[in-house]
Amino acid sequence: MMAESPVPPLAAGPTSTVEVRRWRAGATRLESDELAVEAPLEIRLGKSPITVVMRTPGNDEELVAGFLFDEGIIDGAADIKALSRPPLLSDAERGNVIAVELAQGARRAPSERLFFSVAACGVCGKRSLGELEMEAPVIDAPLRVERDLLARLPDRLRAAQPIFDRTGGLHGAGLFTAQGELLCAREDIGRHNAVDKVVGWALGAGRLPLADAILVVSGRLGYEIAQKGIMAGTPIIASVGAASSLAVELGKRYGVTLATFVRADGMNVFGPAGRVV
Amino acid sequence: MMAESPVPPLAAGPTSTVEVRRWRAGATRLESDELAVEAPLEIRLGKSPITVVMRTPGNDEELVAGFLFDEGIIDGAADIKALSRPPLLSDAERGNVIAVELAQGARRAPSERLFFSVAACGVCGKRSLGELEMEAPVIDAPLRVERDLLARLPDRLRAAQPIFDRTGGLHGAGLFTAQGELLCAREDIGRHNAVDKVVGWALGAGRLPLADAILVVSGRLGYEIAQKGIMAGTPIIASVGAASSLAVELGKRYGVTLATFVRADGMNVFGPAGRVV
Repeated sequence: MMAESPVPPLAAGPTSTVEVRRWRAGATRLESDELAVEAPLEIRLGKSPITVVMRTPGNDEELVAGFLFDEGIIDGAADIKALSRPPLLSDAERGNVIAVELAQGARRAPSERLFFSVAACGVCGKRSLGELEMEAPVIDAPLRVERDLLARLPDRLRAAQPIFDRTGGLHGAGLFTAQGELLCAREDIGRHNAVDKVVGWALGAGRLPLADAILVVSGRLGYEIAQKGIMAGTPIIASVGAASSLAVELGKRYGVTLATFVRADGMNVFGPAGRVV
Repeated sequence: MMAESPVPPLAAGPTSTVEVRRWRAGATRLESDELAVEAPLEIRLGKSPITVVMRTPGNDEELVAGFLFDEGIIDGAADIKALSRPPLLSDAERGNVIAVELAQGARRAPSERLFFSVAACGVCGKRSLGELEMEAPVIDAPLRVERDLLARLPDRLRAAQPIFDRTGGLHGAGLFTAQGELLCAREDIGRHNAVDKVVGWALGAGRLPLADAILVVSGRLGYEIAQKGIMAGTPIIASVGAASSLAVELGKRYGVTLATFVRADGMNVFGPAGRVV
């Protein structure tokens, strides 16, 4: 028997409740459990779908704006004329499609790359090694942050993640000032989506490039996080987990300081070290 | 100043050593650190690049075979005539390209989907909601596993992850029998790649569909892990982290039992519960 193809659930909110058999300390109970919602968002340029992002519903417009910016499809907020949720036919699509209308004169990547190769994680969907090339300036922002303050930012990000507490299943990304003030925190089941959302927020707030902000992420620091941070101009990226070899390579090349395994009493710092004082 | 585009490092091995400023207990030391390598692998069908996977080098051929199977491009090992590393021109490409020669009569998706939309994580690169459809049978394998044994499998997987111990930065995927025997364990910076690698191993070993195996993953259990497990026919998928709403939805639809937050003394079970006894 073949199962029907999966119909994405309606994107009603960031969590959903399902039945679970929970085993704890030798006893099994049938209970309800709160899960992080994962639902596809189709992004259209005009009427043409360009990609599907598997995301947690919420701040969808920021996600789309940040995605377009991080992928180099737009250069700024003015390049977006409108984001809209088109009238749709099927239940599965409702709430899960956003159409982008670009302003006249907005930068557009070559149509083939634009329509076939962009993807939320910055890698997948690209077809050849050449398509991994990135066009971004070296970041020479003079931002400085005290190490003891930087060490506490992951805890502050965690405190701004209400959905993680309920589900244990969401990544977080946050932007902080060098004084430790939280500018914006977003959650998503995809770590790269969480970064796209904070970049989308910064785009709307007129704060790009983020020369005066620290990007903090809850998970590991791989290529896609480094790439998005560099596109947004952040001089410092801090993560709770490990960095990959390529993220460290990108950090060096573009002048970004990476801090990994950031804890209250320890961290590893790669790249320009003068920013952590 | 614009930085040059990133040249992927040569894929010499699964880890690389870099200089780090390590801060611990108030003291900073300049030390060397071992990082998990993240490097792009370009997959070609014949001479045409179809996608780039950001992966940790090692078991690349398994990764490619598992990827082709999980994406529905091949139906079995016989569909692959040859995997080769083509003679290349640039340093950046060396070690990071695999060309696939399909057997005559091998199933091929429509060319547009084949060439533009496949992607390692099962989502990115797909352009519309319709492309998320999956063609797979419902899994009715009668596999049973004792709960106390299942509870110990994540620790056994971890013990089979030598690179994680050195870097703290790699996901693991493993296949176990119902008696707890480890069939195959693989590591990768991408959790979906680790699953593709074990599926590629199973493909080569003539073990698909995996009706008698338990798939164990080190991270969270989202859409892409559930999708790959279902394509490979695994009746039970166990994870250390949380499941997403869509993974639970897929598990129900395709008859797969999901166990999440699996610890020595607890777990959450979704879907057909009779398999965990």
